[in-house]
Amino acid sequence: MNKPKVVILGGGFGGLAAARAMSKTADVTVVDRHNFQTFLPLLYQVSTAGLAADHVAYPIRGALRKTNTKFRMASPISIDHKNKEVKLDSSEILKFDHLVVALGSVTADFGIPGVNEHTLGMKTVHEALAIRAEIMRRFEDLCRFEDNTKFSIAVVGGGPTGVEMAGAIAELIRGPLKSDQANAAAHIDISLIEAGPNLLPSFAPSLSAKTKKDLEKLGVKVLLNTPVKAVEHRKIILNDNSSIPAEITVWAAGVKGSDAMAQLSLPILNNRLAVEPTMQVKNYPNIWALGDIAGALGKDGRPLPMVAPVAIQQGKFIAKQIARVVENKPLKVFKYLDKGSMATIGRNKAVVQVKGLKISGPIAWLIWLWLHLFYLLGGRNKIGTMADWTWNYLTFDRGNRHIMDSY
Amino acid sequence: MNKPKVVILGGGFGGLAAARAMSKTADVTVVDRHNFQTFLPLLYQVSTAGLAADHVAYPIRGALRKTNTKFRMASPISIDHKNKEVKLDSSEILKFDHLVVALGSVTADFGIPGVNEHTLGMKTVHEALAIRAEIMRRFEDLCRFEDNTKFSIAVVGGGPTGVEMAGAIAELIRGPLKSDQANAAAHIDISLIEAGPNLLPSFAPSLSAKTKKDLEKLGVKVLLNTPVKAVEHRKIILNDNSSIPAEITVWAAGVKGSDAMAQLSLPILNNRLAVEPTMQVKNYPNIWALGDIAGALGKDGRPLPMVAPVAIQQGKFIAKQIARVVENKPLKVFKYLDKGSMATIGRNKAVVQVKGLKISGPIAWLIWLWLHLFYLLGGRNKIGTMADWTWNYLTFDRGNRHIMDSY
Repeated sequence: MNKPKVVILGGGFGGLAAARAMSKTADVTVVDRHNFQTFLPLLYQVSTAGLAADHVAYPIRGALRKTNTKFRMASPISIDHKNKEVKLDSSEILKFDHLVVALGSVTADFGIPGVNEHTLGMKTVHEALAIRAEIMRRFEDLCRFEDNTKFSIAVVGGGPTGVEMAGAIAELIRGPLKSDQANAAAHIDISLIEAGPNLLPSFAPSLSAKTKKDLEKLGVKVLLNTPVKAVEHRKIILNDNSSIPAEITVWAAGVKGSDAMAQLSLPILNNRLAVEPTMQVKNYPNIWALGDIAGALGKDGRPLPMVAPVAIQQGKFIAKQIARVVENKPLKVFKYLDKGSMATIGRNKAVVQVKGLKISGPIAWLIWLWLHLFYLLGGRNKIGTMADWTWNYLTFDRGNRHIMDSY
Repeated sequence: MNKPKVVILGGGFGGLAAARAMSKTADVTVVDRHNFQTFLPLLYQVSTAGLAADHVAYPIRGALRKTNTKFRMASPISIDHKNKEVKLDSSEILKFDHLVVALGSVTADFGIPGVNEHTLGMKTVHEALAIRAEIMRRFEDLCRFEDNTKFSIAVVGGGPTGVEMAGAIAELIRGPLKSDQANAAAHIDISLIEAGPNLLPSFAPSLSAKTKKDLEKLGVKVLLNTPVKAVEHRKIILNDNSSIPAEITVWAAGVKGSDAMAQLSLPILNNRLAVEPTMQVKNYPNIWALGDIAGALGKDGRPLPMVAPVAIQQGKFIAKQIARVVENKPLKVFKYLDKGSMATIGRNKAVVQVKGLKISGPIAWLIWLWLHLFYLLGGRNKIGTMADWTWNYLTFDRGNRHIMDSY
């Protein structure tokens, strides 16, 4: 049987899941601009000196070993739909029978002025190291001033990403930085700014309330019902034109489909690729999209959450769909199996929601810990992360406080 | 008793050893341009994907915790010798009774044209990540070409640094890169170029010969008696005007005192600070120098090697000397206690020389391993490094093959 040629654009959770699932039945090439996958769910721990940058990355070639899958480090420039070819910035042109678009997402500014210029995003190792370096640099400033100068960090966005980031920054400051120089650490404020009435809006109200309380205990100022109007140099402007000082603003308010999307001449709807329930891109039966870049809808008609489990399930699903096309079998409709949501707030503090079940505190924290370790790619990353976590837990320290973004 | 104000420029091995040794008897401020110490002896393992970049760094504030020592992240601009002040680029002016210059070294090009433009040094985390990224990028090129294109890496300098680098690159290529894509890995050549007649010239001839043999077994082409005349784009020019192709040239041929030295208005001799046998800088009895930047002489009248043990011993020695000045006691003369030299070539392969004793093979390798672990700062780095090493040893893999120098 002739194996179909499949090109997968993007080597994230979804792209790699698809590649592995179809490696025996198709002739697969994975394309990614990096030679590594970034484990985005733990990126905030790189930003807050808990994990080594190298441990949240995994070489894509390593992930694809023994699968007979090709890899190309490149970005797509354009698709030639007539000839079924994708052109890469490495000057290669790849022919495909099926194309899987798994390019992920980038930070969304929702048209709010100043977001690009004055905030730090949380989507790449580079950005994570920039946040870490900025926090440590401003801390060094305070150490030098030795006066009452205050310094404020704001995290915008009260979803899981913002909550985890704010909690981890608070622990970094109240723990290791306090041990480094207590008077300087005491002059750093952290606030978490959310436009809506609740943190973690997709969670049960009791867990949202618990999260707020836990963060406040850590010293985070939680501002609800506080939409951001603009971000300026060292401050955030609110709707009533009042402002909040913010030497560092971390933008965790949302993401949208990758910018690369615009170059592919594919239908876009609400900043994501328009897809059929079969995960085919609208009007392009041999082009598939998955994960953050795909605007797939859930049972309730709302977009599916932009999280790893959605992308992984869709990746495996698309592998089966392509096999159905090859075997001339009817296509199926993608159904997301929601295994639950979780967010960690800090040491021994997390919230987990699985169907009706709501868990918070140390048990939720342990569940969070083990699930993240389980999904982390590679034994070395698992061991390294476990070692770092154990060390951090026992010593209350964070060993990666290095300013390494520039040299 | 009035504690003397001591400013230590540089938070490397020597600077930190001095700071700790005098933290109780002096009012110490350590100044470094980074907020972390770099464990230079293991940097080549970052370059070759064996260790995470964060694990060869250690926060200086962490190293100085509980010592009552101040830290300033800054570089010195100038010394006001009359007023005993040092001016920092952070706009601070620090008064001192004693100044300890421990600024380390930078890559020396020995006036050879093209070294700065066309080679990669091995002195900072940034440079280590650049080497790693270049190797992995050229490897990706070969994977894309899928033809007989060759690609050459040259390491210049047959001292311990060059030997360790060449061996580690060879193992990276013959192991993990071969597993990633065998035909591409097979097209990468590595050569080690040494101007003199022997590798590891400071070791016994039998160990030098053993090192050469071990490297050749790993596939390294060893070129002795081969002085480099110039380095050009993608090639190295030899004295007879013949050339060696080198898409990547790693420069491990030597170091000289830090460039910052020139700004301090202190006497310089042979690219290092001119010091008395007491470790005082010539003509400046209250200014001390140590480590790579200090031109101290050994028993044989030759400069001491630019290695960590020299700097550490001098740091502790200077702490005692300053105490002698304070107590009006006569100064002593520094004597270096040579505990031996070692270099690792690869898996189970190393050479160790302690006084008359010469060891090579697995036992030398284990000695090397444990001594480096012992001197690595911080329990977290020790555990993390041990975990990485164990993993690499058992799996023959190197997990940090990420291109992370630019984003």
